Amino acid sequence: MARNDKSIPYKTYLDENEIPRQWYNVRADMKNKPAPLISPADGHALTLEEMNPIFCEELNKQELDNDTRFFDIPESVVDFYKMYRPSPLVRAYFLEKVLGTPAKIYYKFEGNNTSGSHKLNSAIAQAYYAKAQGLKGVTTETGAGQWGTALSMACAYYDLDCKVYMVKVSYEQKPFRREVMRTYGANVTPSPSNTTQVGKKILAEHPGTTGSLGCAISEAVEAAVTTPGYRYVLGSVLNQVLLHQSIIGLETKAAFEKLGVKPDILIGCAGGGSNLGGFASPFIGEILRGENNYEIIGVEPASCPSFTRGKFAYDFCDTGMICPLAKMYTLGSQFIPSANHAGGLRFHGISPILAQLYADKVFSVRAVEQTSVFEAAEMFARSEGILPAPESSHAIRVAIDEALKCKETGEEKVIAFNLTGTGYFDLVAYEQYNNGTMTDTIPTDEDIARGLALLPKVGNE
Amino acid sequence: MARNDKSIPYKTYLDENEIPRQWYNVRADMKNKPAPLISPADGHALTLEEMNPIFCEELNKQELDNDTRFFDIPESVVDFYKMYRPSPLVRAYFLEKVLGTPAKIYYKFEGNNTSGSHKLNSAIAQAYYAKAQGLKGVTTETGAGQWGTALSMACAYYDLDCKVYMVKVSYEQKPFRREVMRTYGANVTPSPSNTTQVGKKILAEHPGTTGSLGCAISEAVEAAVTTPGYRYVLGSVLNQVLLHQSIIGLETKAAFEKLGVKPDILIGCAGGGSNLGGFASPFIGEILRGENNYEIIGVEPASCPSFTRGKFAYDFCDTGMICPLAKMYTLGSQFIPSANHAGGLRFHGISPILAQLYADKVFSVRAVEQTSVFEAAEMFARSEGILPAPESSHAIRVAIDEALKCKETGEEKVIAFNLTGTGYFDLVAYEQYNNGTMTDTIPTDEDIARGLALLPKVGNE
Repeated sequence: MARNDKSIPYKTYLDENEIPRQWYNVRADMKNKPAPLISPADGHALTLEEMNPIFCEELNKQELDNDTRFFDIPESVVDFYKMYRPSPLVRAYFLEKVLGTPAKIYYKFEGNNTSGSHKLNSAIAQAYYAKAQGLKGVTTETGAGQWGTALSMACAYYDLDCKVYMVKVSYEQKPFRREVMRTYGANVTPSPSNTTQVGKKILAEHPGTTGSLGCAISEAVEAAVTTPGYRYVLGSVLNQVLLHQSIIGLETKAAFEKLGVKPDILIGCAGGGSNLGGFASPFIGEILRGENNYEIIGVEPASCPSFTRGKFAYDFCDTGMICPLAKMYTLGSQFIPSANHAGGLRFHGISPILAQLYADKVFSVRAVEQTSVFEAAEMFARSEGILPAPESSHAIRVAIDEALKCKETGEEKVIAFNLTGTGYFDLVAYEQYNNGTMTDTIPTDEDIARGLALLPKVGNE
Repeated sequence: MARNDKSIPYKTYLDENEIPRQWYNVRADMKNKPAPLISPADGHALTLEEMNPIFCEELNKQELDNDTRFFDIPESVVDFYKMYRPSPLVRAYFLEKVLGTPAKIYYKFEGNNTSGSHKLNSAIAQAYYAKAQGLKGVTTETGAGQWGTALSMACAYYDLDCKVYMVKVSYEQKPFRREVMRTYGANVTPSPSNTTQVGKKILAEHPGTTGSLGCAISEAVEAAVTTPGYRYVLGSVLNQVLLHQSIIGLETKAAFEKLGVKPDILIGCAGGGSNLGGFASPFIGEILRGENNYEIIGVEPASCPSFTRGKFAYDFCDTGMICPLAKMYTLGSQFIPSANHAGGLRFHGISPILAQLYADKVFSVRAVEQTSVFEAAEMFARSEGILPAPESSHAIRVAIDEALKCKETGEEKVIAFNLTGTGYFDLVAYEQYNNGTMTDTIPTDEDIARGLALLPKVGNE
């Protein structure tokens, strides 16, 4: 029985002085580099000078650097990390027992901080660089509210203004998220809103829309470039975010090495890519360098299936079509998923790094339906004692599926997944699931075709 | 600067094999034992046989045992503890910096589990004994919802039915707590309700009441004794609960010993007593045995000041006056505090163990107003990155006050407090504070006198 296997503790914590001092940049090990951000006007690759009015300068340097393998983490950020890191690598003995599987399941738990997720790892880095640049504040969007909360916490720490555009469906379903952000001093606006030109335009064209990350990005970018002393920051998709989030994978790798265990399968959910990318990239680096082999699985919602039904093409990151173009798997910037509750996975595109790695077949992706995701979430909550966020529960679903396969085959595979968030602000969705009123909303082929028909010509011809 | 004091880590975790294997029973070291529970009819001390129809048998043995210093923790409970224990002892470097104090502040963080509080420590023990006795289910009350959530999790683990009466004001202010409990399979009823005789009576006498722990206890006890195969379990007040919660203080003591640090001041909030009693009792034991000296401070809300304005007397634990009498500091079982948001501290009485220790001047108590509590909560959230529960924030308030005194005197006192819960389900209260609409509600002398006038004659003459 797994629970009597005393050689592996339930929770493995690294020591504080084992917190990584450098972030890992997987681009340095990629043969096919991710495509650069380009101008929607003429398709030229954006330069540092062109990006500096939108984003913080030091972050732009990180964004454009495909070669440096490791970046030093500023001392002040390491200090802040000690508030909630190292996070534990947990052996899911209780879940294994419920499943009756010979598989050995592990999860890296990133939800033990008040932002409720891994987003704080990049938020504090971005706030640090904004402060170092002498900025007054930053703007951003948030889907499920986790990124906005994380950024609010980071801005409170560095005494920066924080202006958050929150996807309207999440704003309404998670009213308490707003209060957490306000407690940390942030200003929160439901998106689309009337506070920006692009928001007004979207509202006029789609009255009654529940919003999307793409809309909220447009508004936040507009607010940043039109307010002196502000820049825009983003919690996913960008290369810099995957860089900062690599701390998850680095700690995971270090913990596995400490235990003398090699994972066979690594699983992360995929919305914009910060979860999967942060967790898997140090392992992907080993694959790319030919040092080791792992099965890496991304999991996306069937309601917003960028990888599995999207197209690898240049596209706008935002619905308002005011941002640079990124090459990614996309459903089209005008694709607005139905009101799926996994707010953080509602993005139409994906990190360009992950897009390139997927195109190069370094990992696979599965699309799962949300009722099956909540079934897995509830099983996990009851056995492991943590109420998971819907986003993370996508990874739990596939981890359970893989563990059940092992039950059939008798294989003792080591399965690891990234549990990035807690579900304390997702109780509206849990209530629907508990009441049996939750449904699955999968776009039709026509929905997908309609989204893809509107891809820009620039970059794709 | 405190943050450069590298000898003490930000977070100290014991190893899994250092989880205490025994609970500590402070009664064994008390010269003046806590007064026994007595019958409201004739004042005789209740026997095991009389208690067994209400509570689980093994728990009754623990309840009545004033002599055994240590109780073995069942192996299955130790296993479950490994799901979320050991909990960290955190050095509050960030808070110290914000305060500019020479004091060294530590907190034991018990909120890192889905129940959001320390309540799980006793819930799993009580569920274990209920299961071992072959029961079908248990009933209970919950104030802030933390105990109910903890018990739901524990019952899910041992496959027991769980029926929770939730104080109506909390039920309404914390709608999502209900969904967490339901996710763990519990049945939740707002109290007072029409599902019990005592509930109907209270509703008839006090239409529009927002409820109290005392009312909810009456309903839960009635439901237990009228349903075959059920017993009543309680999350605070009782001796057995302080016994189980001693694991907090035992771990805290072990962590301090590991660090080579001796705390000067230990602070816990006091509602029913599980927080303060669990945290402080192993230290109190050292005081009682003459081995060491500490300043122990309990903190209660000024809106429900049992210790500081109540009377040390026998009283009903419940509003419906159907339970045995306990000798405690009480405001009278008919005292219903105004709708203070610190739901878990709304109880009119206190643990008989703590009552006796307070009468013997082993510790002191301060009553604090809730706006000052939320001020402390916000300062803590912004500096330490954890959104605290209002209950725990009472302790934070006094820890900050003591640290500010050290700033004046230059003393480098070691201040430790028990951070038992997170505030993710208390956002209605945070919203009021953020909006500036929170008020302090302190009972008048007439309110207090009215409550005390109704103390029973039995046991007090």
